[in-house]
Amino acid sequence: MDNRPIGVFDSGVGGLSVVKEVVRQLPQEDIIYFGDTAHLPYGPKTSQTIKRLVRDNVRFLLKKKVKAIILACHTASAFTLEEIREDNPIPIIGVIGPGAEEALRVTKNRRIGVIGTYGTIRSGAYAKELKRLEPEASVIEKPCPLFVPLVEEGWIEREVTHLVVREYLEPLKEEGIDTLILGCTHYPLLKEEIARVMGGTYLVDSARATVAQMKRILEGKDLLAREGVPRHSFFVSDAPEKFARLGRIFLGKEIEKVEKVNAC
Amino acid sequence: MDNRPIGVFDSGVGGLSVVKEVVRQLPQEDIIYFGDTAHLPYGPKTSQTIKRLVRDNVRFLLKKKVKAIILACHTASAFTLEEIREDNPIPIIGVIGPGAEEALRVTKNRRIGVIGTYGTIRSGAYAKELKRLEPEASVIEKPCPLFVPLVEEGWIEREVTHLVVREYLEPLKEEGIDTLILGCTHYPLLKEEIARVMGGTYLVDSARATVAQMKRILEGKDLLAREGVPRHSFFVSDAPEKFARLGRIFLGKEIEKVEKVNAC
Repeated sequence: MDNRPIGVFDSGVGGLSVVKEVVRQLPQEDIIYFGDTAHLPYGPKTSQTIKRLVRDNVRFLLKKKVKAIILACHTASAFTLEEIREDNPIPIIGVIGPGAEEALRVTKNRRIGVIGTYGTIRSGAYAKELKRLEPEASVIEKPCPLFVPLVEEGWIEREVTHLVVREYLEPLKEEGIDTLILGCTHYPLLKEEIARVMGGTYLVDSARATVAQMKRILEGKDLLAREGVPRHSFFVSDAPEKFARLGRIFLGKEIEKVEKVNAC
Repeated sequence: MDNRPIGVFDSGVGGLSVVKEVVRQLPQEDIIYFGDTAHLPYGPKTSQTIKRLVRDNVRFLLKKKVKAIILACHTASAFTLEEIREDNPIPIIGVIGPGAEEALRVTKNRRIGVIGTYGTIRSGAYAKELKRLEPEASVIEKPCPLFVPLVEEGWIEREVTHLVVREYLEPLKEEGIDTLILGCTHYPLLKEEIARVMGGTYLVDSARATVAQMKRILEGKDLLAREGVPRHSFFVSDAPEKFARLGRIFLGKEIEKVEKVNAC
């Protein structure tokens, strides 16, 4: 048993879909969330800059005595996971591996779609991971850059959102994929609209898959928290009000306190 | 006469709509463009951070021996223009003053709409400037955060774009404004869709208004360049390929060379 908190790191607010899953799958766990909002978005930055930022921000979480860390940012996961793991002894997982593994578990025809931001798709991180685990897999990738601002507007169930989803995904549907990875932590909020367009395609929610993996790891190492009232603390490097406003869309309830800490 | 270049600064690619206007209104002028893509977007950052970034980036332009500077970034204009002017003897203008002045010149009922990013609208910069120049003006502001990603997708004339424009602007139309300031350097690309929704409302293109003011200043100070083949140079602090790709949407032609310089 270990009552220390789980650390969740993201460049912004998207990692809150991971928080929501922690609350669902591991309701007794304390959470320390850090959103590096002073430096978002990570997508367009060089891998050197991203590595420096993630290293500094992971240090912030370690100072808060976390027992494990989820890199809830796809860009951070793609570029820094191995290095961060080497430097730190606690369990650290990203959002790409778990999503790729679930996709390969459920696919029948091994034709897998991946959607994400330009940054994530350009990194090819999911394609590499899928090919590494299953060289026979066909991976069809598609950036959907309008999904994030649609979610952040709170336009979840609107005609215009349906139209944008159709515009992006209909060509993907024609590719005959049977599994689609939602490769961005904002996308689970559009799951219903995406399901409407993609029909019977299996949707992999990477936040859900990641937390399921974290749960297995904590169980295996006997690091789960005892029952109790969990504390969730939220830190950002800039613009706490905006984070709180967007947080409501993700969590479906107010975040009472968002603390601004100095950016590294 | 002065053949030194005009410096154009933006946090990203949007300032290219200002470049396009320089080419149209001042075709003989050399241009040095700097896009601080390593730190975009400026909107959510604190004014302290923005001031530091703009100061450093203006220094880059000064080293390139520019004769005048346009702060083509609304956030930079709102938070730093006065300070940057105090520190430097050359003509420096932002994008907010010229747009506000044009709006007040053309309005008949003094009901003026302003659209922009969340950052620009939250800063209240246009409202303050309009009220300063004309205390009787009524200013109705509206953030339209989906316009930038739509432009960056190149979705200029699409059903979905028309729908988004309608969603944002129809409530504004009902406010009885006769003039609408396009308070973001991306928005001139959506001018036709916006005009379709806004009917007879006069649209103020802030890029166009800004370059017109720069032209008057250079004429007044006898700083216009002699005729010749102008050179346009583009520098960014990160991701030059993405800049070049988006630049095409703005300029309607390839940017041959985008140079990456180290971020301050």
